[in-house]
Amino acid sequence: MKNTLTAAVILIGNELLSGSIEDKNLAHIAKTLEVRGIRVRETRIIADVESEIVGAVNTLRAKHDYVFTTGGIGPTHDDITSDSIAAAFGVKNVIVQDVFDRIQTYLNSKDIEFTLAAQRMAHAPEGAEMIRADDSIIPGYRIENVFVMAGVPRIMQHMLGGIINHLKTGLAIHNAYVHANVGEGEIAAALEAVQNQHPDIDIGSYPQDKGSTISDYRVVFVVKGTDLKEIEVTCEQILNACHAGGYDAIKI
Amino acid sequence: MKNTLTAAVILIGNELLSGSIEDKNLAHIAKTLEVRGIRVRETRIIADVESEIVGAVNTLRAKHDYVFTTGGIGPTHDDITSDSIAAAFGVKNVIVQDVFDRIQTYLNSKDIEFTLAAQRMAHAPEGAEMIRADDSIIPGYRIENVFVMAGVPRIMQHMLGGIINHLKTGLAIHNAYVHANVGEGEIAAALEAVQNQHPDIDIGSYPQDKGSTISDYRVVFVVKGTDLKEIEVTCEQILNACHAGGYDAIKI
Repeated sequence: MKNTLTAAVILIGNELLSGSIEDKNLAHIAKTLEVRGIRVRETRIIADVESEIVGAVNTLRAKHDYVFTTGGIGPTHDDITSDSIAAAFGVKNVIVQDVFDRIQTYLNSKDIEFTLAAQRMAHAPEGAEMIRADDSIIPGYRIENVFVMAGVPRIMQHMLGGIINHLKTGLAIHNAYVHANVGEGEIAAALEAVQNQHPDIDIGSYPQDKGSTISDYRVVFVVKGTDLKEIEVTCEQILNACHAGGYDAIKI
Repeated sequence: MKNTLTAAVILIGNELLSGSIEDKNLAHIAKTLEVRGIRVRETRIIADVESEIVGAVNTLRAKHDYVFTTGGIGPTHDDITSDSIAAAFGVKNVIVQDVFDRIQTYLNSKDIEFTLAAQRMAHAPEGAEMIRADDSIIPGYRIENVFVMAGVPRIMQHMLGGIINHLKTGLAIHNAYVHANVGEGEIAAALEAVQNQHPDIDIGSYPQDKGSTISDYRVVFVVKGTDLKEIEVTCEQILNACHAGGYDAIKI
């Protein structure tokens, strides 16, 4: 898509892989970035294993404008993200003094011991730039084009709120939706013809199950692009193709 | 984890990356496999782009016992999974005659034209083994250690139901959960000591937001392994560590 940037997301955590905990972060990140003209083009969900994190970070930071990670920056033994990011960049994972001081002050005020484990949260790869959003004590950070965030959705959203101001932006990406009662096989040829007329628009076709929470129609077409006028025209053409075949279809 | 197998999941579809549609398949796949001793160790969400699919399939099939893909096997222009899987294996994407015949019979009975587009659903990479579950007309298929399934959850679940009988199994993986009102930093050292005593058990620590749908407690420890007795002992030790520090904790 012209004049847009690309991003990859790395969701770190065994629990996401085993289905114990459902990810809530990817959709939020993708939608937040899209309106700023940055498209998430790849997402990896990986285990809390250093070699996996190093491999994913180094592959994806070379391939995309930005990489965002979530998870693994707490104090427990499975929180190895900062160690791993440091290893990916070939630097040390070091104490960030002002983060250390803030956590210490906070814990003192609550009469909680600042354990060695908790001190891991005051570490970041050497050279990382802390990005503090609002009132959060633990900041996200940036190292080159990689942004490191917490896994807990509320905290991640705070961090991303601070990070977005540090990003280059592209043309905002917009979405429009056509819902239709047509079999995909019956409309596929006409849909492809519309797609071929608009190479800078992405048309996705998503059949819906009975009882879908997304639509009562049999299929949803997602029309995505940066040019609102062209999106509008594309939707019109899809609607016309449906109606010409005698199928019920509406733009929502 | 001893005597278990590993798997990777590839979720194919732009809509999943952009947050338009939330994935419902990974958790189902992971849980279905876990009870058969197969652990999902990596998941990639990728765009409807042939080179991306080829790259992910070839990397992951070399690295894991099994690879499962979802999405992109319908009739529309963005359904390029079978073409891409064929390319990954260096074979042709060919018509599977009995699938072709079944679809044709079905569409005839509904008085729907069997369009060229719809005929794409009757294709699979040369040498693939069709895996028909229950009454589904469109089968999933296997080529070597790669299993290809639909993206629509209900259909995917049908297909997986047929596929699981074709898989080698390992020792079933079990989960237990300890919920505790403790800060992660306060319990991290004790938790790590427990983890170090049980290298074949995975202890994950997941802090909960206020209003979490998972737990009213501040943190959930997920204890995962193949030995029920060892899981039990590990949970006891975590509970003891919490209680010793004066923190409320229960096993659920």
